[in-house]
Amino acid sequence: MTPVALSVRSRAVRSSAIRDLLQLTERPEILSLAGGLPAPELLPVQQIAGAVADVLATDGHVALQYGPTEGVAALRATVADRLGDGTDPGRVVVTTGSQQALDLVARALVDPGDVVVVERPTYLGALGALQWCAPTLVAVDGDDDGLRTDQLADLLAGGLRPKLVYIVTDFANPTGVTLAIERRRHLGWLADHYGFVVVEDNPYGALRFRGPTPPPVRAFTERVVTLGTASKVISPGLRVGWLAAPEWLVRPLVIAKQATDLHTAVLNQHVVQRLITDAAWFDAHIATLVTSYSARAAILADALGTACGEQFRIGEVDGGMFVWLRPRDGDRYVPAEQLLGAAIDRGVAFVPGSAFRHDAVDDGTMRLCFTTVGADDLGTAAARLGDAVGAVMTAA
Amino acid sequence: MTPVALSVRSRAVRSSAIRDLLQLTERPEILSLAGGLPAPELLPVQQIAGAVADVLATDGHVALQYGPTEGVAALRATVADRLGDGTDPGRVVVTTGSQQALDLVARALVDPGDVVVVERPTYLGALGALQWCAPTLVAVDGDDDGLRTDQLADLLAGGLRPKLVYIVTDFANPTGVTLAIERRRHLGWLADHYGFVVVEDNPYGALRFRGPTPPPVRAFTERVVTLGTASKVISPGLRVGWLAAPEWLVRPLVIAKQATDLHTAVLNQHVVQRLITDAAWFDAHIATLVTSYSARAAILADALGTACGEQFRIGEVDGGMFVWLRPRDGDRYVPAEQLLGAAIDRGVAFVPGSAFRHDAVDDGTMRLCFTTVGADDLGTAAARLGDAVGAVMTAA
Repeated sequence: MTPVALSVRSRAVRSSAIRDLLQLTERPEILSLAGGLPAPELLPVQQIAGAVADVLATDGHVALQYGPTEGVAALRATVADRLGDGTDPGRVVVTTGSQQALDLVARALVDPGDVVVVERPTYLGALGALQWCAPTLVAVDGDDDGLRTDQLADLLAGGLRPKLVYIVTDFANPTGVTLAIERRRHLGWLADHYGFVVVEDNPYGALRFRGPTPPPVRAFTERVVTLGTASKVISPGLRVGWLAAPEWLVRPLVIAKQATDLHTAVLNQHVVQRLITDAAWFDAHIATLVTSYSARAAILADALGTACGEQFRIGEVDGGMFVWLRPRDGDRYVPAEQLLGAAIDRGVAFVPGSAFRHDAVDDGTMRLCFTTVGADDLGTAAARLGDAVGAVMTAA
Repeated sequence: MTPVALSVRSRAVRSSAIRDLLQLTERPEILSLAGGLPAPELLPVQQIAGAVADVLATDGHVALQYGPTEGVAALRATVADRLGDGTDPGRVVVTTGSQQALDLVARALVDPGDVVVVERPTYLGALGALQWCAPTLVAVDGDDDGLRTDQLADLLAGGLRPKLVYIVTDFANPTGVTLAIERRRHLGWLADHYGFVVVEDNPYGALRFRGPTPPPVRAFTERVVTLGTASKVISPGLRVGWLAAPEWLVRPLVIAKQATDLHTAVLNQHVVQRLITDAAWFDAHIATLVTSYSARAAILADALGTACGEQFRIGEVDGGMFVWLRPRDGDRYVPAEQLLGAAIDRGVAFVPGSAFRHDAVDDGTMRLCFTTVGADDLGTAAARLGDAVGAVMTAA
């Protein structure tokens, strides 16, 4: 059979070679620091089982029926309430994970060729969603304080006119970096001055190990779409996320969502709503995650320094799920993609930073996730990575 | 705040006036023949509660974790098996309802301006998904045997070159019509000869009250994407659907799905998988639906003839969820949108056929769903509609 020609976008948006390599990391003998998955043993299975039973016993015929495209009213109200700044629930739309929120925002705002600014590096899934709208992607560098808003300001002063700026503000994927407060303020000012929308993605903010939570970008401008998700604090398998948008953008987003999947699973929304509003349990659950993830981050940091050498030594981790490295081998960077091959051979995996750049350049960076592998195995993972580092450096 | 300009597509794809009117039908005092919802009291709440408990007890940490974009392997295998024609499970992709399947197929195949053929009338949600890809929509008439493939053949002979043809084959939404076997064969031949893809959507096929099930279009050509869903036979609120595509199209569809929502809720997939493979229960459940829906269709048909007059008399209904009417008022059609207004005033609702035409013309047709309202209320619904008919005819 002759295939029908794929759409131009479908031909353009390819799965990367790195993604194919990372599929190997699903083999059971591999200790994966690659995935970005919550700790499986901390998923609140019993609590979710109880919530499902409760929802089905009391509201089963509603929870299993078609639901409103905007989302279940109670969950929208809960999300608005937790945003804590008087957000109207009418501005909240429940999404099938925050991946879908990004897709909807892109569909509602971005025409082919429109400028979209992302951080370099940025969340891989964001690139996937944005690229379907065929934007002109412009990458602005990030550093230890997050997106370099000075660089963005220079580009704007030079005439760049983005439709939207996408950013993970707290413990970013992939770098783990948190955007500094003064840069949040600056970004808000730039959004107002130049008239673009900031997409403020914050799946990891609740996983803070120490220090105060900074105000969100939406504290400094109304031109923000805030993305949130139950994936990192309750369960990714439920696929429940949400967004809060400026009022003028809600209806276009809802119409886009209706075309995409009608609505998010109703049962799943009710379950998330119940778990979030059970404040005593929810706070305790997050505390458990924070305690466990914080301990794992410390163990991995120690083990990396010991097993892989000084170049792999990292400081204290403040939160989230990731550490970000750029080890040197003498006066050059270790080629991360090559290191990944050697690491997989030795039963450990990570993600080379090239996966998080829209230009896919291997700049020697690597993302290690410390939440998926248990505390007992992190030392072994680091040792295997140390072997791989030795082999790649010897071979070079 | 000055809004940022919406994308061209977002501005083009508006929610219709009819959709706004239909929102009124959610008021509790309205008996809605509009919705297209499964009977709420027949949703298998207990069975789903049991399946969830079972999945969480045995596979909780998998069911609540991130899952494969293609879908859970066991469900893909079950779907392939039930297609019954040796379909490789690798060609099955689980989707967030079949609405998403349509969105993915459109994204993977349709560039702006590409020709997409739909039946006139067609499923409203299909228009919503397809329009995001800015195709040239060409409508081919349907009659009592479904899509007029002779009309399609004439257009193709005249040079029309569609990328895809979308069709609901069995007890179609909105008309309730089933595509005749010789037309299925003809459509398959046309697909092979002219090189387009048929999207064969079949959510209602299992709800057959009488007569043999015809072979699917995919029995006559390999150029088919088959869409299926758990929404009509298990629960729409779970948002689990699937597609089976030609092998060359699977990877582009999976990449599109990854950008859209990463994957469909894993727990929901496992639940649907368990319920479908519990053959004794599933067959009995479908028999229950068929018995109940068949009885309701007969009650509504009787009541319409009695309450609304000869023009509302319909014959025996063979399956599905809908009846389709085009009542006359003397030598003109009853204006269906005007009738809807009068009907809502009297506490009953339906959907005017204009909602199912891409040109939104009110051609006097109406869709009535007989599954949402209970058997006891269908007579009242028909009586209220009769009042509305009387008022509209008097006013004219």
